[in-house]
Amino acid sequence: MSHTLILLRHGESEWNAKNLFTGWVDVALTEKGRAEAVRGGQLMREAGVLPDVVHTSLQRRAINTAYLSLDAADRHWIPVKRSWRLNERHYGALQGKNKKETLEEYGEEQFMLWRRSFDTPPPPIADDDEWSQAGLPQYADLGDEMPRTECLKDVIERMLPYWESDITTDLTAGKTVLVAAHGNSLRGIVKHLDDISDADIAGLNIPTGMPLVYELDDSFAPLKVGGTYLDPEAAAAAAAAVANQGR
Amino acid sequence: MSHTLILLRHGESEWNAKNLFTGWVDVALTEKGRAEAVRGGQLMREAGVLPDVVHTSLQRRAINTAYLSLDAADRHWIPVKRSWRLNERHYGALQGKNKKETLEEYGEEQFMLWRRSFDTPPPPIADDDEWSQAGLPQYADLGDEMPRTECLKDVIERMLPYWESDITTDLTAGKTVLVAAHGNSLRGIVKHLDDISDADIAGLNIPTGMPLVYELDDSFAPLKVGGTYLDPEAAAAAAAAVANQGR
Repeated sequence: MSHTLILLRHGESEWNAKNLFTGWVDVALTEKGRAEAVRGGQLMREAGVLPDVVHTSLQRRAINTAYLSLDAADRHWIPVKRSWRLNERHYGALQGKNKKETLEEYGEEQFMLWRRSFDTPPPPIADDDEWSQAGLPQYADLGDEMPRTECLKDVIERMLPYWESDITTDLTAGKTVLVAAHGNSLRGIVKHLDDISDADIAGLNIPTGMPLVYELDDSFAPLKVGGTYLDPEAAAAAAAAVANQGR
Repeated sequence: MSHTLILLRHGESEWNAKNLFTGWVDVALTEKGRAEAVRGGQLMREAGVLPDVVHTSLQRRAINTAYLSLDAADRHWIPVKRSWRLNERHYGALQGKNKKETLEEYGEEQFMLWRRSFDTPPPPIADDDEWSQAGLPQYADLGDEMPRTECLKDVIERMLPYWESDITTDLTAGKTVLVAAHGNSLRGIVKHLDDISDADIAGLNIPTGMPLVYELDDSFAPLKVGGTYLDPEAAAAAAAAVANQGR
């Protein structure tokens, strides 16, 4: 028996549109981002790839994307599970900063290190920074686990326990699982599934609003490496655009 | 220790606006209904009555109301639970029919019996009726429990097991619980909480989009009979309008 996993990165957010580092800042989708989410749901419905359960981060842009896509797919009624472990990478002290200005201030090398290095996090954010999440009720239970900055390695380390405990449990139960999340938490899942090296993951970009479907065997290995986008041409064009962000 | 329960009836739906019997037909909110949901969330936020968990029916208009109100209250990230047991009353063969035309065709007595009698359901809907829910995936697990018509007594009998198994469990755990549902499933909860007689419940109308807050003791008896609307003046005006529907 194979298992069906659908990965969906949230559409354009208010800060994507402004070219700011967002991370854990809880911004909303733009009108374009909402339309992307609806389109993602329509693609699922047209392809007949229909989730039985959805997992989201605790962040508004992923929650909105899940809601809008499921509503468009007539799957608004399925069970919903959420975890901070699916949140976007915490961008540390870069949160709230303009990407282009950061590139100009710190130079290409430092900029790309922060954006794409596997194990170099940006400087941590101060708890009294206006873009800190310290003290928010949704993270009150985290205690010492609450990140102040993260590299992709950190994201994967906090994401995988949820993959093992919750997502694979639903897959094993025969459910088609939708994960509505973020560029970096989804890159972490794809790296794990496709066994991508720490070096090569830097080159992987996941486009927004495009359902990426993995059929998995009983040990959760992909039947097809890289999965299948429900709209492959649009996905390739969008991935190229993501790679050029900040330029 | 007291427990906090918030009841929220969905705002205006497309069929409320058209004056049709809706029941289990899965219509969306109107623009006005969406605004009501947002306002409900703003009232919760302003009052500092903030849900820790939300329970919804499996119907789009309640799911949309929960989503929009929680987003407005900055509680979009809380856990979500859903059950068909919180669905609106199944209106049987009346589903899809105009309320005014039904009143004219069957007369005041029969009309009010169907609308407000405690234990007289309308005629059942045929499974091949265009407004039947037979065969929908969200109800596939119900089997023989799937209703084809319901009176308020039937609604209460299928709602109470969920109240006991899931809602009171969350209340006992100290959580503030939001139930986003429908006129009749919420009347069932209120009848149970306030110990309203089978005769008197006919006169109780719950306005749309107005959070109704109950503080409950450890045996789930209300500290104040009838609870407290977060916007009491608007609630009284809206309840009067609901009572005149179909006129």
